[in-house]
Amino acid sequence: MQLIDGKKIAADIRAEIAREVEEMKTRGLKTPHLAAVLVGHDGASETYVAGKVKSCGEVGFKSTLIRYEDDVTEARLLQTVHDLNNDTDIDGFIVQLPLPAHISEQKVIEAIDPRKDVDGFHPVNLGRMVLGLPAFVSATPAGIIELIKRYNIPTSGKSCVVVGRSNIVGKPISILMSQKADPGDATVTLCHSRTRNLDEIIRSSDIIIAALGKPQFITAGMVKEGAVVIDVGITRVKSDQTKSGFKLLGDVKFDEVAPKCSYITPVPGGVGLMTVVSLLKNTLKAAKREIFP
Amino acid sequence: MQLIDGKKIAADIRAEIAREVEEMKTRGLKTPHLAAVLVGHDGASETYVAGKVKSCGEVGFKSTLIRYEDDVTEARLLQTVHDLNNDTDIDGFIVQLPLPAHISEQKVIEAIDPRKDVDGFHPVNLGRMVLGLPAFVSATPAGIIELIKRYNIPTSGKSCVVVGRSNIVGKPISILMSQKADPGDATVTLCHSRTRNLDEIIRSSDIIIAALGKPQFITAGMVKEGAVVIDVGITRVKSDQTKSGFKLLGDVKFDEVAPKCSYITPVPGGVGLMTVVSLLKNTLKAAKREIFP
Repeated sequence: MQLIDGKKIAADIRAEIAREVEEMKTRGLKTPHLAAVLVGHDGASETYVAGKVKSCGEVGFKSTLIRYEDDVTEARLLQTVHDLNNDTDIDGFIVQLPLPAHISEQKVIEAIDPRKDVDGFHPVNLGRMVLGLPAFVSATPAGIIELIKRYNIPTSGKSCVVVGRSNIVGKPISILMSQKADPGDATVTLCHSRTRNLDEIIRSSDIIIAALGKPQFITAGMVKEGAVVIDVGITRVKSDQTKSGFKLLGDVKFDEVAPKCSYITPVPGGVGLMTVVSLLKNTLKAAKREIFP
Repeated sequence: MQLIDGKKIAADIRAEIAREVEEMKTRGLKTPHLAAVLVGHDGASETYVAGKVKSCGEVGFKSTLIRYEDDVTEARLLQTVHDLNNDTDIDGFIVQLPLPAHISEQKVIEAIDPRKDVDGFHPVNLGRMVLGLPAFVSATPAGIIELIKRYNIPTSGKSCVVVGRSNIVGKPISILMSQKADPGDATVTLCHSRTRNLDEIIRSSDIIIAALGKPQFITAGMVKEGAVVIDVGITRVKSDQTKSGFKLLGDVKFDEVAPKCSYITPVPGGVGLMTVVSLLKNTLKAAKREIFP
């Protein structure tokens, strides 16, 4: 069994990006610049955005944080999106979700210029991805593909089950895994709450991508010998065994499943650590005009 | 075994649209108006476009046909797209594909205002469809969903195999069938040229959507008793049994497969007849501003 080390791969990618940024600066090119818009004071959002801003610094990007209180109007936020779209120094930007209930997230997302949509949430980027065109792919699916690529895990012709059909993970990763590409070319079955023989489908799959958000749902009996297991779930549960009083659990019962796998991602330390580097990679692509020339 | 009668359903929908257009006119509303752009003199394209224009007349739509010779420049065509985007009398328009090699189809498609993209080829519409948002869905997948709906074929929790991963049929119908919707909520496996145990997957499926373009590929031995079979393939082959000297074959060996099915679409007379009515439905939705208010 080989553990997929998200921490190591994320560090490798960070170092690669830092090297490339260094080189761009040497050649007199503009420093890649990511902006983040944060509304309100949600604890998780604060943490995520702080992590993104910090990571920018580590790879040599410029970053800008724009903050609003919870009561910002939708019109004001749309104006900010518009300004960022037109700011030639900003290569890409994100609006941290969730937004307060009085603001339409979809309207805000669709207002972002697809060329600066480094979160890959704009329908144009999703649509282009489905068509197999260059596109900003959202962080989690992009991170999964990157892990599979860096570990040279074969996917062509393999059976792959994706459990969970969320817009940000299940649907896009199911499309990417079945795409004519490497990684890709797998025979993908997308499962969800209405799926009847879920255990049987998982048990017959070479690659299992668990993104349903139910802690420790996938047990050893559901996994065939030699399977590749990618665990996207991250659920925070109370624990008296940690200082913080909680721990993070994946969708897979790691201790019993791992011995049966050829490859498995741990939680924490797996897919979750890839999301910020996916964002950095997208920002670098935006700065280099790789997606929309 | 119940034959899915594409001809009858298409006629029903045409009549429904005609009735609604009549009513719109009575209420003093503008007549829905579809424009089609045709480049060159490809025989099949000429036939398709003529069919679309004729159908517009039958349901009471206005239609405009814009023709160019094969040597039209990309810039000229993009200008026409731009003009149609800005023409307030035009509710929706299509640019008939394929285009000559010197013109980028993708560039032309992406130049179309998504609000007038009644072919549903713009990435925004595809992306919105994936996200479960209102969107113009392209003709063939929309036609399949319509047939399933009109025959009240249960799909929730059913296993569904889609054979073929084309951008215009396989990928979008796989997404629609697995979507949280009715029809939808099926457990979908998307198969393609790299799939290893295709026979076995098809044989275990409740619903089979064949869109691989290989005439008579699916035989009785590959279909389980009571399956629903949707045949998207239309291949023109030579025949000495018809006046025209050719006949149309589906991807399914109809004669031997049909007796095993609960429902099956014939070729011709099935899915193919739904494509023009899907376009008409999209044009009506565009005229009513149903997708993008």
